[in-house]
Amino acid sequence: MQNTNQSCNIGFVGLGVMGKNLALNLADHGYKVAGFDLDAQKVTDVLETEERERPKDETTPRIYGCDSMSDMLSKLVKPRVIVVLVPAGNPVDAVCNNLIEAGLEPDDIVVDCGNSQWTDTIRREAEYKDKLKFFGTAVSGGEVGARFGPSLMPGGDADSWKYLQPMWEAVSAKVDSNGKPIESRTPGKPVTEGEPCTAYLGPNGAGHYVKMVHNGIEYADMQLICEAYHLIRSLLGYEPEEIGKLFERWNKGVLNSYLVEITADILQQYDEKTGAPLVDMILDSAGQKGTGRWTSISATQLGVPAGIVSESVYARALSTLTQEREMAAQTLIGDTEFGELDATEVENAIEEALYCAKICAYAQGFQIMKAAQAEYNWTLNFSDIAKIWRGGCIIRASFLQKIAKAFDDNANLENLLLNDYFANALATKQKSLRKAVILAAQSGIPTPSFFSALAYFDGYRSEVLPANLLQAQRDYFGAHSYERVDCERGEKFHTHWQEDGRPERKV
Amino acid sequence: MQNTNQSCNIGFVGLGVMGKNLALNLADHGYKVAGFDLDAQKVTDVLETEERERPKDETTPRIYGCDSMSDMLSKLVKPRVIVVLVPAGNPVDAVCNNLIEAGLEPDDIVVDCGNSQWTDTIRREAEYKDKLKFFGTAVSGGEVGARFGPSLMPGGDADSWKYLQPMWEAVSAKVDSNGKPIESRTPGKPVTEGEPCTAYLGPNGAGHYVKMVHNGIEYADMQLICEAYHLIRSLLGYEPEEIGKLFERWNKGVLNSYLVEITADILQQYDEKTGAPLVDMILDSAGQKGTGRWTSISATQLGVPAGIVSESVYARALSTLTQEREMAAQTLIGDTEFGELDATEVENAIEEALYCAKICAYAQGFQIMKAAQAEYNWTLNFSDIAKIWRGGCIIRASFLQKIAKAFDDNANLENLLLNDYFANALATKQKSLRKAVILAAQSGIPTPSFFSALAYFDGYRSEVLPANLLQAQRDYFGAHSYERVDCERGEKFHTHWQEDGRPERKV
Repeated sequence: MQNTNQSCNIGFVGLGVMGKNLALNLADHGYKVAGFDLDAQKVTDVLETEERERPKDETTPRIYGCDSMSDMLSKLVKPRVIVVLVPAGNPVDAVCNNLIEAGLEPDDIVVDCGNSQWTDTIRREAEYKDKLKFFGTAVSGGEVGARFGPSLMPGGDADSWKYLQPMWEAVSAKVDSNGKPIESRTPGKPVTEGEPCTAYLGPNGAGHYVKMVHNGIEYADMQLICEAYHLIRSLLGYEPEEIGKLFERWNKGVLNSYLVEITADILQQYDEKTGAPLVDMILDSAGQKGTGRWTSISATQLGVPAGIVSESVYARALSTLTQEREMAAQTLIGDTEFGELDATEVENAIEEALYCAKICAYAQGFQIMKAAQAEYNWTLNFSDIAKIWRGGCIIRASFLQKIAKAFDDNANLENLLLNDYFANALATKQKSLRKAVILAAQSGIPTPSFFSALAYFDGYRSEVLPANLLQAQRDYFGAHSYERVDCERGEKFHTHWQEDGRPERKV
Repeated sequence: MQNTNQSCNIGFVGLGVMGKNLALNLADHGYKVAGFDLDAQKVTDVLETEERERPKDETTPRIYGCDSMSDMLSKLVKPRVIVVLVPAGNPVDAVCNNLIEAGLEPDDIVVDCGNSQWTDTIRREAEYKDKLKFFGTAVSGGEVGARFGPSLMPGGDADSWKYLQPMWEAVSAKVDSNGKPIESRTPGKPVTEGEPCTAYLGPNGAGHYVKMVHNGIEYADMQLICEAYHLIRSLLGYEPEEIGKLFERWNKGVLNSYLVEITADILQQYDEKTGAPLVDMILDSAGQKGTGRWTSISATQLGVPAGIVSESVYARALSTLTQEREMAAQTLIGDTEFGELDATEVENAIEEALYCAKICAYAQGFQIMKAAQAEYNWTLNFSDIAKIWRGGCIIRASFLQKIAKAFDDNANLENLLLNDYFANALATKQKSLRKAVILAAQSGIPTPSFFSALAYFDGYRSEVLPANLLQAQRDYFGAHSYERVDCERGEKFHTHWQEDGRPERKV
């Protein structure tokens, strides 16, 4: 291994697929990388790949392999910037402590690019304060994103950001002035123009929190697409390929997004073994890695209604009960009806319903972040967040350009639903969401997230909810008291609802 | 204060309203109580109440006041049983440590009757193992329940249970052989016949966990009632009193329950100040103390679909946004229709819909407990749990008799929905739940819990869910792999969905 003292711009601990690809991405943008992994084979692997992909006019390696952490530290310019890409949890702390032992200095910056929980990032930033600058950067876009342009969500020490900013802006995904991703999938030919999909989001855990909510929204987005597919297929009897073509058409309109695009592709693929539509050969049991759950739990803890996200998480859980559902399908017979349906009408209704429900899901996601910034003392820029999701990440969509504009027009927007553009979309298309819900209810097709979206929309726009009755019940059995509509907020009343078995009123 | 060395059966630390009432209840059943509170006034208060309420033929006090914990310990027979009724959290540990300092012995039993989180009870049982027997007993039924018969949910050391059992069976609520509560509200004249609403539920946190789920179900129950009321009022234009009478009628059928009973009562009350229906003078902003949230979070962590509980928690959260909703009501105009409605038909549909949704809510609650027993190594008796909820607690209902029978018939029932009785109820009444959902969707009345109930029912009875498409999406963007319907479970496949921009299939 070559020794190039203090000439590397950035170090990597962890050269698994994410670390390797992000390192190659940095190399493509002209940064010299020093890479270390406990598994020496991984180091060899990234060096070989780098050599193979190295542009002909480059004479020196762009990635240097290191055989120890101190070797890596000796290769880095100061203050050192070290990306850690190891499994979330204890390994991150182990690496921090090993780096400190290896001679890391207090001004050096350790960037956790893994899937850490934001609470860990908050803790670590405080815990390592005097020993290093701990910084979080959530990476979205999977392997391909890491290699050719991810959405990067950085959060941490504001002073450290100036060292990271040029690198993160270089390697992140790019969008054009209309918010459309500019993509290259060719090693050595990175995208160098366009707006970068990264922005400093705030101190400590802000980046990892925003990424978690991204994933929560992703769960909702995927579930809504699946429900739309399920409705179309069940109601109209279309084959997957036909529905794939429909999604292809939808992808040209307001629903344009990566997830709709890949859905169109998936539904048009056939299984080599059986010749059947490939989707039909896949077991209907969905996995999950946790970030959707975390989003749902955080929303619940913060008291933010996020039914669409939660129902999407529950839908995955329900899907895993394949045997129980088989049994239930025999026992619980549906009393349903399909009625006469006009195919074009149904197609259009479901397209519009999907759009309405999507608006509601994103509204919930942004409300969660709004509550979190109050809880954790962050000052999130919601326009920036929408902008950095336009490229590189799974939920990338032209739709996010509209959200960015909504927050550009009013940074203190109470709820996305109240923005003119979205309010207008819901005004003109809500009937389709109602229709989709009604069709699902009649025909017995489960659409928990469509249902939850409509309930959210109608609940949010309800000046009076039956929570007055609920609060009366709480006062009745638990003396929890209530406020009155004709008195000051905060003034509490209790009614002695019953005494000796008979109601009695004392306000 | 009299000194009666080692003659008292049970000690109390904390004589607030719950402690005081439970102590008086024990006294009514012939147990001698030694009571202590840091606030001497509370001790005086319980002694005065005891004297006032003492039966004429009793010559000696039934409750003794103590001026210190060691004073209390000196008055108790061994092994000592000490009920702690202080705010959940640190105060419980403070009392344990103070009791140890005051001379508590390792065989003595400390019973936490507060609203502790089950995880704390698990921790405490282990933490104090060598110093005392820590036992949890959740108390449901509020002040009145504590005084005249609560539902008691005990969990802890099985050996200690034999000392508690006679006392808990004496003071708990009672039901007759049909499962109907036998109630007395007269001090000194406790109910002494009937089946007690308590049973040993398992080690450490089992009791507190079951109580938490009780409260989660209670949230759902209340929200469903509120949605039914809201639908009836909005669709049929009935006044609250009229709806109260309807609930009174419903209370005579399968919906018979404490919550329906008090709803009927509430809706028929008028405000003294304005003469308006009292419910209309109450602000529609519902409070919550946390147990509903905890249930929703625990379900999410355990991967148990519990949308009805979660939507009920979110509905309360949404209700608190009164100002935002006022604004939204102006901006987000509904595109809705009511159509021609037959009042009797709507009444009947909503009654049946409420019953169907209630079945689904309880099914979710029992599924949460089933997952928790696996997680925490408990062996819960679901029939016992249903039985002890028949009296004393907020969700008491004749309905619970049916649930007890379902688990008596099959202790390993996979899901309440699969029991013959409930499956049949859903078979014959599901159309009404569909109708309620359709009416709500058409007319713009938010019914998140009704919606979630129908989606759960239809999802659970779906042999095929669109999770196959979802899993394909996950494999497409994240190489998460999938299982095939024609291969063994556990065998994983990955498709190279696209290469060089073109789809390619490799299974």
